[in-house]
Parts: sequence; structure tokens; C-alpha cells
Amino acid sequence: MNFSLPYLPLREAKPRKSGLTMMMDKGLSLREVENFCDAASDFTDIVKFGFGTAFVTNNLKEKINIYRQANIRTYFGGTLFELFIIRGMFDEFRKLVDSFGLEMVEISDGSMNIPHKEKLEYIRTLSQQHIVVSEVGYKVSGVMIPTEKWVEMMQTELEAGAWKVIAEARESGNVGIYNSDGSANAELVCDIIQTIDKDSVLWEAPNKSQQAYFIKLLGANVSLGNIAPHEVVSLETLRLGLRGDTFFDFLPEELLSKKLK
Amino acid sequence: MNFSLPYLPLREAKPRKSGLTMMMDKGLSLREVENFCDAASDFTDIVKFGFGTAFVTNNLKEKINIYRQANIRTYFGGTLFELFIIRGMFDEFRKLVDSFGLEMVEISDGSMNIPHKEKLEYIRTLSQQHIVVSEVGYKVSGVMIPTEKWVEMMQTELEAGAWKVIAEARESGNVGIYNSDGSANAELVCDIIQTIDKDSVLWEAPNKSQQAYFIKLLGANVSLGNIAPHEVVSLETLRLGLRGDTFFDFLPEELLSKKLK
Amino acid sequence: MNFSLPYLPLREAKPRKSGLTMMMDKGLSLREVENFCDAASDFTDIVKFGFGTAFVTNNLKEKINIYRQANIRTYFGGTLFELFIIRGMFDEFRKLVDSFGLEMVEISDGSMNIPHKEKLEYIRTLSQQHIVVSEVGYKVSGVMIPTEKWVEMMQTELEAGAWKVIAEARESGNVGIYNSDGSANAELVCDIIQTIDKDSVLWEAPNKSQQAYFIKLLGANVSLGNIAPHEVVSLETLRLGLRGDTFFDFLPEELLSKKLK
Repeated sequence: MNFSLPYLPLREAKPRKSGLTMMMDKGLSLREVENFCDAASDFTDIVKFGFGTAFVTNNLKEKINIYRQANIRTYFGGTLFELFIIRGMFDEFRKLVDSFGLEMVEISDGSMNIPHKEKLEYIRTLSQQHIVVSEVGYKVSGVMIPTEKWVEMMQTELEAGAWKVIAEARESGNVGIYNSDGSANAELVCDIIQTIDKDSVLWEAPNKSQQAYFIKLLGANVSLGNIAPHEVVSLETLRLGLRGDTFFDFLPEELLSKKLK
Repeated sequence: MNFSLPYLPLREAKPRKSGLTMMMDKGLSLREVENFCDAASDFTDIVKFGFGTAFVTNNLKEKINIYRQANIRTYFGGTLFELFIIRGMFDEFRKLVDSFGLEMVEISDGSMNIPHKEKLEYIRTLSQQHIVVSEVGYKVSGVMIPTEKWVEMMQTELEAGAWKVIAEARESGNVGIYNSDGSANAELVCDIIQTIDKDSVLWEAPNKSQQAYFIKLLGANVSLGNIAPHEVVSLETLRLGLRGDTFFDFLPEELLSKKLK
Repeated sequence: MNFSLPYLPLREAKPRKSGLTMMMDKGLSLREVENFCDAASDFTDIVKFGFGTAFVTNNLKEKINIYRQANIRTYFGGTLFELFIIRGMFDEFRKLVDSFGLEMVEISDGSMNIPHKEKLEYIRTLSQQHIVVSEVGYKVSGVMIPTEKWVEMMQTELEAGAWKVIAEARESGNVGIYNSDGSANAELVCDIIQTIDKDSVLWEAPNKSQQAYFIKLLGANVSLGNIAPHEVVSLETLRLGLRGDTFFDFLPEELLSKKLK
């Protein structure tokens, strides 16, 4: 940090157990990955190679290495898992993950129908040798999951071995836990946090208003994902109360009188 | 490609005759052009120097050279052509194109009124020594072209020597072939594809939903343009069915039962 | 410039007295700053380190140096000033500015309530040794300043020693001088320009339509700010009439007949 200020919320150093930031890489070049790490590696815990971009990304091994040297874990977006599953190629998927030396793997059913028992089985199998993140929520805007079912899926997926569950939002932030205008589905979020351990959920929150919403609701050390590369530093300022949106959120009572009415 | 998967649509290698991707460069630096080519040159056929940015772009010759070494053709956005035409400087425009050694040239009337006979004459003249792309559609949101006129303009411009016709959308994607909310003008698109050869049209489609719309309608190898530099890799995954939006579009019948309802 | 064209509005060379462009840096890496300067330093007068990003930005001194070598002045976003003020740390703020060798400083009250007399006092004090920009307008969308008050604040802040006053819009462009849909509050803008010297105001205008609005209203050499790094070159084309939006704005009467109806 370039100077010190009182009343800032505490942030863990890496490797963090809570307050994780997951960035979405949609096809950065090698040098762009270096640039990113130079500016934001302290604030980034995980990088997801978004949807199927791993198929067409140049220098993928080298990119993974640069991220690794910056202590950032990488994994393939859940859509890649589904692309293999729908083709009946689960074994090939495992081999692919291993051939790139990835510790972490995402299991999702956002684009296709996977019976939940089968999804849990994938989680059980892969969590024996990998850190599994499993995602709940569909990418299709019309298809809704009832709240009770959503919470139950998260619970059973954690029990099956998932390290964290991800609440779906896509890159656009208008499906899953969000309404079509990008605002949070407050009832769903409320039910999730009443049942699931705070540190076990990573909320996809691509837009600033969504990031601010979760920081206000769950604190500086909420885990957030699908952050664009150039928004990671900004997100860190939101977490620390260094931006207008969260300016007053971590200040002591006696300073709140200076709030704009 | 980093691995193999069945049921992916075939994509030609460069130089492509169909399925072209045109990226819009609004003023990248030299090193950013290198970064872009490193990540996306396999998926990029053409780069347009957007509107009049060629006037103020540093190191333009060097940029053109980097693109050329990556087998990417470059040309000046149609607005630059119009900036010269409205000043009665057609000859100067030709000299400018030649001084930068550009094979390709765009002729448009998106910002100003050019009698169509005159536009056809420019196409005839320039197509003798250049690859001409001609654009149909206005940049002004209130000014509409009747569908029959639109199709007729495209037809006669191709007959006059245009290699491809471009359907206007701007960088913002809310004029020309799109309604003001960014959705496609389906009737207009339908009339165009019934008359004009599929491989002769390049559709400006800056937004993901627009790209997915044309891939669903016309297949993986539709030609699309005005793609932002950091969206070219993502577009390639859309073309290949490697993203949620087109996940089921290239799969065989027997796998479609796994679609989310 | 790569070629010449008649009827372009005149632009001063740096250091400019009017027609300034202020870019917002939200955490660029060192090499991204070099890339930016390579492409856009001729068109950039000032760089603001947005909100509290200066706290978490790596290599901040080196970044300031690169900008300085490109004749670009830098300063900390007003939110950083307010973060110190609300903690009663004005002296520490001054020391911070001096420790980074910054000539320029922003004083604002966009996130917190500062009695205007006190704000004027900060301006008086800091303007003795620094170039002060002071910002008027709140970041909170519901809190409005009456037009007369807004103009009066600008006037008194200039009298107190501010070099320029900034009209607030945030990075999103939907508060302060803009309505929630991003359109300009025309009445407020009108009242400001009737009273305050044109060259004393810098308008935050993050979106293209807002930039075009002010160029049409006040000419090519209006001072604009909160421009994203990759939009600075595009903004320069808007200023010069080299993009569709301002294509006709600087042409002589006799060429206007070619306007699209």
C-alpha cells in the first residue's frame, strides 16, 4: 500500500481463505497477462479461462505459468466441462485438466441439463484429486430454479466435496442470482446466506453495482467472481471503502454524520 | 487448437473466403497491436481503422506492417472516405490509400448524402485496383432506408465491383440493421439474405447478442465486423459452439434432449 | 497528423489552455501506461488516478514519471482527498501529495458533506502551492444541488483559487450534470455556461454521446474529463469532426446541403 489510513477493513494476504477475487480471462495475450499480474496479482486469487476460450487460446501453458508465478490459481470455465460431458467425454476432460497441470476444476450445469445425482457424482470423483468449484444456476434467462432447490443444490454440492459453490451470473450479470435489469434477486440471496457458510460461496458479480451490493451485505471479505481484468483494482478499492459507493461502509459511527442526506 | 472435440463446425484457415472476422482498431498502440496479433491473429481477417482515427493515429505505417505480417488486411473506415468526398478530394483520398500501400478500401455513405449513381461510380473506379468493401446504411438513427432500396443498393454495389457489402451498425450497434434497442431488424435481414449471396455480406455486429443472432441464423461461417479487439477470441468460441449462447447449435439431434427447458 | 484536410477546427498544442482532455487511470500497469502514452499522449493533458486507486496501485511513482515525461500532469481523484478529510487528516494529505511530487490536486465534496466555507478554505490553502481543480456535484444520485447554488459554488471556488472547476459525472456518467439515463441536464449546463468562463470548466463526459453533446454546444476546444484510456483517440476525432457524430459540425455552410435528412 502506498500510504496508511485508519478504519480500513482488514484484508488477508494471499493465499486467502475469504475475500477471494476471481478474474475472468477471455483470451488475454501473454504480455497482457504479464501486465495484469504487474498491476493486480496481489488482489487476485483465481483466474477462470472463460467458457470455451481455452480451446482457442494461444500459449495457454505459458499463461498458466505466469499466473502460477504470481500465486494465482487458474481453471477452465464450467462451460468447457459441459462441452465434454454432453459428448460423453468425462475421462478426456480429466486428462485435459491434468495435462495442463491444473489443481482446480469447475463443475457446472449452466448450459445443459445434468441430473443432479450425476453432477454430485462428478464432484465426488474430481474432488478426490482436485480443488472443485461447482456452479449453481442456469445461463438461460427464462429458466429459473426455485429458491429451496437452489439452496439445496449448493448444500449437497458442498457435502459432495466442492470447495466453494459459485452463484451464476454470466459475464453480463443479468441471469442466475440477478434479475434481467442486473439488480440482485434479494430473496434468493437472503435464503442462500441464511443456510450456506459465507466463505463457501463465490458470487459472480461482473458489474460495479453488484460488487458494491455484496460488499455492503456481506463485508469487505466476500468472495466475488467474473471480474474483468481492468476492474480488479477498482474492486479492491470498493472492498476497502476507497470509492464513493462504499465510502461510509467501514467508518465508525461518529463519522457518519457527514453523510450526504 | 489446444485439444480436440467432435461436432465442432468447420472453420477455414486463412485466407478465408467465408466466415471472416473484421476487428475495429480505434487507436491501439504499436505494442497493443502486437498483443492483439499474438492472441487473435488466427481468427482475424481484416482490421478497420475506425472512422477518422487514421488521421491522429501514431505509427500508422508500423501498425499496418505488424498486421500485414500476421496476414491481416487493413483499411480505413468509410467515414474517412466520406471526409474526403464531402471536401471534393477524391483524388487525394486515392493517393492517401496508395501512400500507405493498402489493398483494401471502404466506400460508404453513412454520414452524408451521396447520390447512389455517384457511389457506384466510386466503386467502379476503385475496384479496378483495390479490393472494395462498400457499406450500406446510415449512421443517423432517425434516417431509414426502405427494405427494397437497401437490397437494391447492395445488389448494384456488388455488380459495380464491391468484393463485399457491409451492413451498417456503428460501434454501438443500434442503427442500420438493428433497432434502437440493439435487436436485429429481422424483416430487413431476412430480405437481404433471400437476395444477396451469403458470402458477399459482412454484418457489423459489435454486441455478443448480435453475433449469436447471426451465427444461429447463418451458421458458424457468417462474416461479422466491428468486433472490439478483446472480443475476437470470444467471438471465435461463439462460432464454434463453445459458449452458452451457441452451445447446442452445432450438436447432432440425439444430444438436443439435454437442452434446458 | 498523417495527412491534411481543410475545415478542421484548430487545436492548440500542449501545454493547452483550452480543449483539455483528462483521462481516468483506474490502475493501469506500467507497460499499459507506456502503451497509452505511445498512442495518446499528444491528446492527453491530465491523468486522474481515479477515486482511491492510488492507495493500491503498484509502481505509482514510476507511473507518474512516465506520464511526466509525456508532458501529462497527474493528480489524485477527489475521493482520496475526502478519505483524508473525513478522518481529520488534511496535513497528512498535503504530505502525501508532496511526497509524490504532484503539482496538481483535486478538492471535492462528492461523497461527503463538507461545509462550503471549509471547502473554500482548503482551496485557498492548497492553491498557494498547487494547481487546484475543484469539483462540484454529488456522487449520490438522489441528492441534487439547486442550479443557482451549483453556479455559485463554481464561482466562489474559482475566486478562492481553483484553476478549473470540474462538473461531476462519475465514471458511469449518470449523476451530477447528467440525468439518470445519461442525457445532459440541459438547464443546469445552460446556467453554468452563462455565468462561468468557458475555459474554467472541465466537464466529466465518460460516454461518447456526452462528449459529442459538449463539442456541439461549446466547440472542439471544450475541456472534457473522465475519459477511458482507450477512448482518448476516439475523442480527438470527435473534436476534429472526424466521426459521424460531429461530421458536419465544423464544415462551411455550403457543404451542409449534403446532410442526411
